Order: sequence, then C-alpha cells, then structure tokens
Amino acid sequence: MDSERFQSVVIAVIVVNAVVLGCQTSDALTARFGDVLDLLDRVALAVFAAELAARVYAHGPRFFRSSWNWFDFVVVGVSLLPLGDGISILRALRILRALRIVSLVPSMRRVVTALAKAIPGICALAGLLALLLYVGGVMATTLFGEHSARFADLGTTALTLLQITTGDSWSEVMREVMQDYPLAWVFFLGYLLVGTFTMLNLFIAVVCSAMDAERGEDRVPPQRAERDSMTTALLDEVRALREDVRSLRGSEHT
Amino acid sequence: MDSERFQSVVIAVIVVNAVVLGCQTSDALTARFGDVLDLLDRVALAVFAAELAARVYAHGPRFFRSSWNWFDFVVVGVSLLPLGDGISILRALRILRALRIVSLVPSMRRVVTALAKAIPGICALAGLLALLLYVGGVMATTLFGEHSARFADLGTTALTLLQITTGDSWSEVMREVMQDYPLAWVFFLGYLLVGTFTMLNLFIAVVCSAMDAERGEDRVPPQRAERDSMTTALLDEVRALREDVRSLRGSEHT
Amino acid sequence: MDSERFQSVVIAVIVVNAVVLGCQTSDALTARFGDVLDLLDRVALAVFAAELAARVYAHGPRFFRSSWNWFDFVVVGVSLLPLGDGISILRALRILRALRIVSLVPSMRRVVTALAKAIPGICALAGLLALLLYVGGVMATTLFGEHSARFADLGTTALTLLQITTGDSWSEVMREVMQDYPLAWVFFLGYLLVGTFTMLNLFIAVVCSAMDAERGEDRVPPQRAERDSMTTALLDEVRALREDVRSLRGSEHT
Amino acid sequence: MDSERFQSVVIAVIVVNAVVLGCQTSDALTARFGDVLDLLDRVALAVFAAELAARVYAHGPRFFRSSWNWFDFVVVGVSLLPLGDGISILRALRILRALRIVSLVPSMRRVVTALAKAIPGICALAGLLALLLYVGGVMATTLFGEHSARFADLGTTALTLLQITTGDSWSEVMREVMQDYPLAWVFFLGYLLVGTFTMLNLFIAVVCSAMDAERGEDRVPPQRAERDSMTTALLDEVRALREDVRSLRGSEHT
Repeated sequence: MDSERFQSVVIAVIVVNAVVLGCQTSDALTARFGDVLDLLDRVALAVFAAELAARVYAHGPRFFRSSWNWFDFVVVGVSLLPLGDGISILRALRILRALRIVSLVPSMRRVVTALAKAIPGICALAGLLALLLYVGGVMATTLFGEHSARFADLGTTALTLLQITTGDSWSEVMREVMQDYPLAWVFFLGYLLVGTFTMLNLFIAVVCSAMDAERGEDRVPPQRAERDSMTTALLDEVRALREDVRSLRGSEHT
Repeated sequence: MDSERFQSVVIAVIVVNAVVLGCQTSDALTARFGDVLDLLDRVALAVFAAELAARVYAHGPRFFRSSWNWFDFVVVGVSLLPLGDGISILRALRILRALRIVSLVPSMRRVVTALAKAIPGICALAGLLALLLYVGGVMATTLFGEHSARFADLGTTALTLLQITTGDSWSEVMREVMQDYPLAWVFFLGYLLVGTFTMLNLFIAVVCSAMDAERGEDRVPPQRAERDSMTTALLDEVRALREDVRSLRGSEHT
Repeated sequence: MDSERFQSVVIAVIVVNAVVLGCQTSDALTARFGDVLDLLDRVALAVFAAELAARVYAHGPRFFRSSWNWFDFVVVGVSLLPLGDGISILRALRILRALRIVSLVPSMRRVVTALAKAIPGICALAGLLALLLYVGGVMATTLFGEHSARFADLGTTALTLLQITTGDSWSEVMREVMQDYPLAWVFFLGYLLVGTFTMLNLFIAVVCSAMDAERGEDRVPPQRAERDSMTTALLDEVRALREDVRSLRGSEHT
Repeated sequence: MDSERFQSVVIAVIVVNAVVLGCQTSDALTARFGDVLDLLDRVALAVFAAELAARVYAHGPRFFRSSWNWFDFVVVGVSLLPLGDGISILRALRILRALRIVSLVPSMRRVVTALAKAIPGICALAGLLALLLYVGGVMATTLFGEHSARFADLGTTALTLLQITTGDSWSEVMREVMQDYPLAWVFFLGYLLVGTFTMLNLFIAVVCSAMDAERGEDRVPPQRAERDSMTTALLDEVRALREDVRSLRGSEHT
C-alpha cells in the first residue's frame, strides 16, 4: 500500500490540489471555472481521506506514533468537518494540505526533521525572549502608554517591541516617543541591545544545532581506527617476542 | 530553606506578581480591580522581602558573593524605598522583579550564565564600536550639523549613526543629507562599511564565545586517552623485554 | 591560443567594453560621443566573437563541457542575434559580458566555483521556502485579499510575503492589515517566524557548505601521516627483531 | 622613550583632545569657551607632533615599516598643513586623531590587527561585489533610467542598488519602479538574491577568517607532541634492544 507508485499518485494529487486552491484566489478564474475548481478540490479531498483511511487501516495504532501522520490526519480531518464554506478561516487552512508534500519528498522531510530536532535545544532561549518581551512590554506601557499610540496597551506594545527587536524602523518609533519623553532613548537602546542579542543568539543556536545534528552522523575518523589497530598489532608482536626470548632463556637454563 | 517546595512557591509568586503588573497597565482593569491588584502587588513584595531576608540570614555574608543574589537584592530593594508611587519610572521598574524567575529556573539560568561569560571577551570590540561612534559623531556633526536636523548636536548624531549602523533606513538619511552636501555619500558608505562590519563582528564574537564555552566542557576525546595508555603499556613491555634479553646475555657470559 | 598574453588582451577588451556600456547610460556622453561608443562596442563584440570562434575551433566538442564556456557562448551569442537595438531588454543584457571577467581572473573564478558548489546542497531548503511562499500566499490572499491592496492577487501577495520574510517594513504591512482584520497578527507573526527562520537557515547553509568545500582541500594533517609512518617503522623494527631472536634460537638448537 | 609612563601621557592627551573636539561641535560651548578649546586643541597637536618627531628620531627609518606608525604620521601631518581652518573637511578630519588610541591600547590593537589580517582573504569577494554593482547598475540604468529618478544615472543607481542589497526599503523601491515597468520584479528579485548572498558571504568570510587567525595561534595540541615523543622513545628502545640481541648472537658465534 505504501508502494512507490502509490506515493507518486498522492504527490500528484497534492500538487493539483495546491494549484486548484491557488486558482481559487483569483476572482476571474473562480467566476469562469468555479465549478470545475470546486469539483477538483472535492475529488482531491476524497483521495486524501481514502488514502488516510487506508494508511490508518494498514498501520493500525502504530499510525499515530509518527508526528508526520498526525499532521496529515489533522490537516485532512479539518477539511472534512461539516462546518460549511462560510467560515473563511477554514477555507484558508485548506492550503495547508500542500505541506503534506514535505512528508512525502525524502529530501524535504530530512531538512524539516533536522530543523525540528533543533527546537528542544532552544526552548530556554525562546522563553527568555518571551520574558524579555513581557517585562519590556509592561515597562514601556507604564512609561510611554499615556502619550504614544504605539504603546497604548500591552498587546500593541508587544508588537511594537517585536518590531524594534527585528530592527524594523526602530529609530522612527524612538524619535516619535522622544518628542514626549526626551530620555526614552535609554530604554530603547537598552531594549534593542538585549533583545537583538537574545534573538540573534536564538536564531544562530537553532541553525548551529541543526547543522551539528546533520554532521554528527558521519564523524567517526577512519584513520584513527586504523592506527589503533596498528598499535594493537605492535603490542601483540612485542608480547610474542618476549615469549620467544623467555623460551630462549628457558632452553638455555636447561 | 532553599528546598524545592519553597522555590516553587517563590516562582508562583513571581508569576502572579508579573501578571498583576501586566494587568495594571490596562486602564479598564485598574479602574475595576485597582485595589485588588494593588493589594496583590504589596503581598508579593512582602513575600519577596521576607524570602530575601530569610536567604540573607541563612547564607550570611556569602549571600553577596553571587551576582544573582545582588540582582534579587537590588530589584526588591528598589521597590521598598519610601519614594511614593508618584515617580512613574520606579513604578515601571517593578516589573524587573519578573526577571528574578531567570535565577530560579535552571535552564534559563544556564543560558544567561553562558551569555554573561561571553561579555569580557568582547569588551575590546565594544570599546572599538563606541570609539567609532564618537569619532563618526564628531565628524558628522562638524560636516553636516549646520543644515541637517539629524546631525544637529553630538547626541542626535550618535543616535542617527547607530541607526545607520543597524541598517535602519540609512539610505533615506543619506539622501536627505546629500541634498545639501552632494559628496556626503563618501562619509556614509565609509561609516556604513566600518560600522556594520565591527558590529557584526561584535555580535558573532559574542555568540561564538558563548557556544565555545558551552561545548568546551565535553571536549576531552576519550579514545585518545585510551590510545596513550596503550602506548605506555607497549613501552613497558619493550623495556621488560630488554631486561630479559640483558639477563640472557648476562647468564651467557657467566 | 589560450596563452597568457591572449587572456590579458581579452580582459582589457572586457574592461573597455564595460566602461563603454557604462558611458552609454549617460545621455550627455551619448549625445557627444555616441558614434565612438557604438563603434567601440561593436569592435569589442567582434573581438569576443572571434575569440569564442577560435576557442570553439581549438577545443572542439570539449568546449561545451565547461559551464564557464556555455556562459561565454550565451552572453556573446545573444548580442549577435539580428534583433535590432530597439528591444531595450537586449541592450541591457549586453553588460552581462562584463561578467565574463569572472571566468578569466583565477581568484574570482575560485570564489564563484565555491559558491556554485554549494547550490545543490540547498535545493531542499530552497524548495521548502518556495512551498512556504506558495502556501502562505494562497492563505493570505484568501484571508486578506478582499480589503488589502497588498494581498489582492497571488503574485502581489508573494511579493509582500517575500518583503515580510526579509524583515523590510513588515510591521507597517501588518498594522495596515490589522485595521480590517484585528487578528491578522497571528498569521503575520507565524509567517515571520517560520519564513525568516527557513531563509536564515538557507543562507547560512549555503555559506557553511561553501566554506567547508574550501577548507576540505587542505585538511590532511601532516603530523598524523608522519606519526603513522613512525608506527609502521616501529612495527617493522620489532618484526625484524623477532626474526633475529628466532634465528638465535635456531642457531642454539643446532 | 616608549616607556609606559610616556604612553599614559599620550593616551591622556588623546582623550582630552577627543573631548575638546567633541565640545567644539556644540555652538553653545564654542561661544563660551571657544578660545580655551582652541588652545587645548593646539597644545594637543603640539604634543602629538613632538611625540611623533621623538619616535621618528628614536626609531629612524624603521619607523615607517609599521602601518600603525604611518597612520599616526598621516593623521598628525594633515593637521599641521597650513591650510587654514576655513576648509571644514580638514576640521572634521582632526577627530581621526582619536583613533590613535587604538594603536596604544593593546587589546584594541589586537582586535584591529585581527580584522586587518582578514582583508586580503576577501579581496576576491569584494571585487565580485563591485562587479555585480557595476553590471547591475548599467543594466538598471538602461532599463529603468527613463522613468525612475532613483535610476537616473550610474551613480544614483549604484547607491539605490547598494540600498537594495542591504535590504533597506527594497520593496518600496521595487513597487515604485513596477508602476512603470510591471516586470521589474524579475530584475529586483534576481539582484536581491545574488547581491545579498554575495554580501552575506563577504561579511561571514571576513569574520570567520578573523576568528581562524585568532585561534590559529594556540592550536598546537600539547598532548599530541607528548605522544609523538613517546613513540620516538619506543622506537629508540626497540632499536637498542635489537642491538643487544645482535651482540648476543655475535657473542654466541664466536
């Protein structure tokens, strides 16, 4: 059931479905081929559902041990809910099915697996960043909230601080605030320094750990093993030699 | 006193306090639950003060050897000063107590310690960057100060140069100045090159040294030690053999 | 034919041609020296064509095995097509001839070869990024297409998402959309996180693999080889010694 | 003459001079203390000139072998030229004297030396970037020069392309051009990809080679040397042993 031909068919259906969903974003195309596109989308969904059912049947409970399978299951399952097409957010989520292709193309699967492995290692840094965002947010809202629309409430402030941390027009925000609070630059420079540094650290840590994981597999140096075996051979040889010499002494003393 | 249960309580109080301070940024919530929030904040502060006093009492003078403890002490101490709530900057600093959680959660503590270790190694680079900012600031104020508001005095210029170094809308600043000084691009490109390069260097140096420190701990290659002991064994064996041969010669000459 | 002097002439012609094409972008210079510049351009093209013909003749079919030669062939060939100067895109492509200098200067050739080697290793990541752009594009067009001009159709949305991924004014775009869809920040932050992370990964992967390739060449540690030969010598010595001892025993038993 | 105390005095004069030049950027301070500041500047310059003369006298022609000395010489020499204070560019250059401090503080000197060492290794990449800028500049001027002020002539275009390469508001520039040339995105995306990639490569290469240089000094693994000497000892031992055995055989045959 998991044969190669079967996978090719599924990949083809995914691609066709992705193209169909892309076409449905165009009003002109929808007006003209709306019915055909809708039909194709339903057919694709039916194929996915059937394929999923077949895989669940074939693998049994083991099916749910793989997070890739969970992803497939949720993405297809959401589209099957009888909620009507009225809810535009669900219509938008349909395109997530296209991401299923990642689990079917080996090279992409490997890349995503490598990236995913890096996630646990960065939880502490991500938590630190979230903490900084919260602390900075409360501080900035208390300090500047009264006069600046960008720091009016905690949510808006958090977005503004995230913007500053990514370096997007931070100087404009700072100048704006400095008109009312001339010393605001102390806060901004401090936050920029700490925030950017932590964020940079976060990104680089992810990348490095992903690369480490990738390289770790082929790290056994072959020459070293060879040399070790040579040293062992030498030791054996010397011990045999000593035996010879001993037997020589023995034969002499007799 | 430093038992695990005690720490959990302190962590819980920190989280509650952080949430309370977050709620106080909202006018709507303050209007409705202002008294409760104020009370909760005071209770949390009391808990912190008590916990701190207990720890100072338990550890004695050793308490002040750890910079984590100093941080706790200052953050809590500031809130206890009888300065009134009128000073908004002090109100804003209260949220810094939430950072205490870093010293209590081991994984975060490790990350921050690793980052802190990197700091001494980058002082020279940071000094270089400050020097560049000053030299560039004096130069730009002398050259463009007359016609451009962004370079009116040394402080404003330093902020503008920092903005350029981070790459935030540098081209807009340059175009503005070039209307009065057509050759200003020479200064801007030069400063952008040197400044960005130094800053990049600075960030990467920090990250690298932090990672080096982290990896340095588990770097002793176990195979090498084993091989060394094998070579030693070999040498012993050969020396023993030579003794044997010598005694053989001796026995012969007798 | 590929002699050093010949190459110097070709490099000189490339540089002159590049300067001529640069001068032709200036209306003032074209008005004054238009005929001379045109003539120089034609002469340069003639030299290139002759040189290319000579190389094809000299190397025969082997000529087309090198991708550098293909590049030369296409760049010169395009200019020889009898399409008239009316098509401005072809006029613009003429300057690509200046890139031929990369294949003639060894140090640049090495750098570009190193970068090119990195390309196959990143196809999976690039594919992942394209997939994200498509999936995000369809999603954003479905969600925000009705009210926001930046997400009107799939092409425009893809450009906007690329802009967000590079961090260029992403907060401005988000704020604009949030006026109509207050929850749009969920999509934006999610996309920013995943997109930036993948893109960063992509770039760093390229750079790292390029550096790895560069270093890979001179990685044989010379000391190790020496040590290995010493161990071999030692083994030989011990074996010879054992032969000696054996012959000693043999001579004794006789 | 190069004694430590002498250096401390020079460092102090440099710092005072830098502060004086900083004060001179302020109109208020100049109006009040203008004469004092001018006097201090002249005194500092006199000290520098005297110190430089002393060093040239002490070291003789060797003085000009160090590029640090050349820097000192040029920076002080420029200020001594009898050009009058009217030329504001020369007034601005005076602050470069503050950079002399880099050559006097060992830790800064080491950092700058490390960065400087990295420069030769990146010339090929920098040349490639300049070539890309020129080729892209000619192409963009030819294509968009007619309708877009940002691409009016080669110089303006080069600045715009540099802006795009650093990712500063590239989408704004692109959208502006796309109003007249709807297909302009092909050029922009292509240039952004190639340009950003090369630039990133350039920066990372610099940083990496600087770090390599720094680490290269303390890379000799001490254990390995020890192990090698042990192997040598072993070989000597075995050879001596063989001599013993030979003499044993000799004594026997007699």
